[in-house]
Amino acid sequence: MAHINANFKNLPASYLFSEIARRVKAYQNQHPSIEVLRLGIGDVTLPLSKTVVTRLHEAVDQQRLIESFRGYAPEVGYDFLKQTIADQDFKKRGVVIEPEEIIISDGAKSDAANIQELFSADAVIAVGDPVYPVYIDSNVMAGRLKNYDAALGRWHDLVYLPMNSSNHFVPALPAAQVDLIYLCYPNNPTGATITKAELQEWVNYANATKAVIIFDAAYERFIKDPSLPHSIYECEGAKTCAIELRSFSKAAGFTGLRLGYCVIPRALILDGTSLLDLWIRRQGSKYNGAPYIIQQAGEAVYSEQGQRETQEAIDFYLDNARLIKDGLASIHLEAYGGDNGPYIWMKNPEGMNSWETFDYLLDKAHVVGTPGSGFGPSGEGYFRLSAFGQRETILKAIQAIKQVF
Amino acid sequence: MAHINANFKNLPASYLFSEIARRVKAYQNQHPSIEVLRLGIGDVTLPLSKTVVTRLHEAVDQQRLIESFRGYAPEVGYDFLKQTIADQDFKKRGVVIEPEEIIISDGAKSDAANIQELFSADAVIAVGDPVYPVYIDSNVMAGRLKNYDAALGRWHDLVYLPMNSSNHFVPALPAAQVDLIYLCYPNNPTGATITKAELQEWVNYANATKAVIIFDAAYERFIKDPSLPHSIYECEGAKTCAIELRSFSKAAGFTGLRLGYCVIPRALILDGTSLLDLWIRRQGSKYNGAPYIIQQAGEAVYSEQGQRETQEAIDFYLDNARLIKDGLASIHLEAYGGDNGPYIWMKNPEGMNSWETFDYLLDKAHVVGTPGSGFGPSGEGYFRLSAFGQRETILKAIQAIKQVF
Repeated sequence: MAHINANFKNLPASYLFSEIARRVKAYQNQHPSIEVLRLGIGDVTLPLSKTVVTRLHEAVDQQRLIESFRGYAPEVGYDFLKQTIADQDFKKRGVVIEPEEIIISDGAKSDAANIQELFSADAVIAVGDPVYPVYIDSNVMAGRLKNYDAALGRWHDLVYLPMNSSNHFVPALPAAQVDLIYLCYPNNPTGATITKAELQEWVNYANATKAVIIFDAAYERFIKDPSLPHSIYECEGAKTCAIELRSFSKAAGFTGLRLGYCVIPRALILDGTSLLDLWIRRQGSKYNGAPYIIQQAGEAVYSEQGQRETQEAIDFYLDNARLIKDGLASIHLEAYGGDNGPYIWMKNPEGMNSWETFDYLLDKAHVVGTPGSGFGPSGEGYFRLSAFGQRETILKAIQAIKQVF
Repeated sequence: MAHINANFKNLPASYLFSEIARRVKAYQNQHPSIEVLRLGIGDVTLPLSKTVVTRLHEAVDQQRLIESFRGYAPEVGYDFLKQTIADQDFKKRGVVIEPEEIIISDGAKSDAANIQELFSADAVIAVGDPVYPVYIDSNVMAGRLKNYDAALGRWHDLVYLPMNSSNHFVPALPAAQVDLIYLCYPNNPTGATITKAELQEWVNYANATKAVIIFDAAYERFIKDPSLPHSIYECEGAKTCAIELRSFSKAAGFTGLRLGYCVIPRALILDGTSLLDLWIRRQGSKYNGAPYIIQQAGEAVYSEQGQRETQEAIDFYLDNARLIKDGLASIHLEAYGGDNGPYIWMKNPEGMNSWETFDYLLDKAHVVGTPGSGFGPSGEGYFRLSAFGQRETILKAIQAIKQVF
């Protein structure tokens, strides 16, 4: 008799974004004539760039001809894309990453969820808190986290690394030993950044304790401050302790195309085994490569025109972020992030918790954001606003928020 | 201190297709002027059809405009594709499958590898033998299979269901209790089929013992015999015991586009839990949906012209299969499959095992196939030839094989 993976039962019943969707839907059913302004989920709104679309058309045409048709892609990605990434994302910043250390995938969400498979079942997990839910949920399904306290909104077997305004959203090193550390900078959901010196401390800690850092750099393209690190490999010694995740989703509007990559340096050895080799084996056995046409589109992002267009889109979203932040400042609402990342992390108005803020903004201003508590215990007290909206939506939302405070 | 997932260590060092690639490369280095004829890996060789390419271009253009741009897809797939599949793949054959029971993915390989996550760690696994390696490798990585006997080429903790010419490649029901049963028809690697009555026996067995069947129907489009079942849901009671995997790869040449789907009926309940709900949760947490443009391309396959073009490609490959089979028959080599599937399962020449046959054909005829033993213990004694090649390659290969026997 077959049985289910009982670890799934440990997942909290309500998923953050489902609960938001449920409340918004209920509100809209009651108020069908009201326009709801969505600054919730972090999906892009600008269409694909001209360069990407042109390359997609070209690649599609190649697939129509027997001479240029491509079937199965290499499971680890095409060399043309890996080489361009090695040159443009790393070499240009003075970091040497070999193309073979870059594994292309269908996006950072899959990589962030699957990477835990390389580690032992008893690995102690630490996450920056608040946190992107995928790191946690994938470890719950794998059985590493079993004891959720619904009242506290905490996993007893997870090491939370609190991030809040008093540590400018860069956590202190953990007090007890941890094995696997998820860090994300520029941060989702807080929009915060980490300095090279701060990140170096984490690298030193990981090397000293033989922990592994999963560094999620999905929002790297949003960095404007030239002093900030774009890659964890800018830190000395990171190649022996860190895996880096990158995404084309927010960087180039690929949320609907699906492309990302994972860097595992050859020097990252655990129990005498190369994690790169393990990951290649994992991907080769369980995944069949990102589509050729989409890898071509990804490569086009790095062309001169592609980079210019990408930058324009990033700047547009960062302008949105500035508008939101300025709007909140004008009514004396404290807010963080938004300078080098697409998220504004607003402090809840006096006397409201995160879900109360959600309900208040939905009801009074018709603005949808994301309650900070949905991202973890340290998210309570905050509220996330996404800068990915269209300009008109952003302006209306700011206006509406101003009127209700 | 972090440790690796030690289950990876249990995987045999050499992956079948890597070993083949290694031997072919070594041969080519020694004989650079010889043309090697590849009938090994089952990748398609015909380009994408006109209808699919036209739809891809249209969908790409939609992604260029702000009004029609699509970002994140629903993790379970777009309704337009799910509805078409429900109508065309099931309703047309008298099977009622609701769109919500169809979960779109980036291909049957991912689904075949990931589906085991829904089941308990101690599930007893059974596979038709010979077998597509993904079913086994994914269970090894998950720790369900730990004891490999390299000398015998067998997993001690796996229940093999032997398939050979004496049972026309349809296995007998297992003697002892099993929990999860992987069956694939039309079969990879043998090219064999299963009758509805035979499949009904498996469904009855699974329902009686509360086992779950993972039915891999990736090659369903190759069925020519109108009496054969295309879906396991043509059998009575299958909705309470079976998951079905489908693929656009071989059916419509999507090996490089990546699209597939998984059917989990609402009625499939284990331990009081809907497996459909578990899978939706799994996909929602660890996957971000197949690209919009590729789901559009998949939908185009079902248009009238799309179906005609798909059928032409299938017929082309089946003609290849017939040419191979007739060629082998003319020199009195016994062979199976090829009538309702793209693979020919040749009996090794007298006195040769599968790898000896491989080396002999590579050396003498310059033909690359796949040693049957690579697919499992019951594969020994056989050799797989793929019908996916271009016509010229197939004809040359048959000629060459004829000359060396």
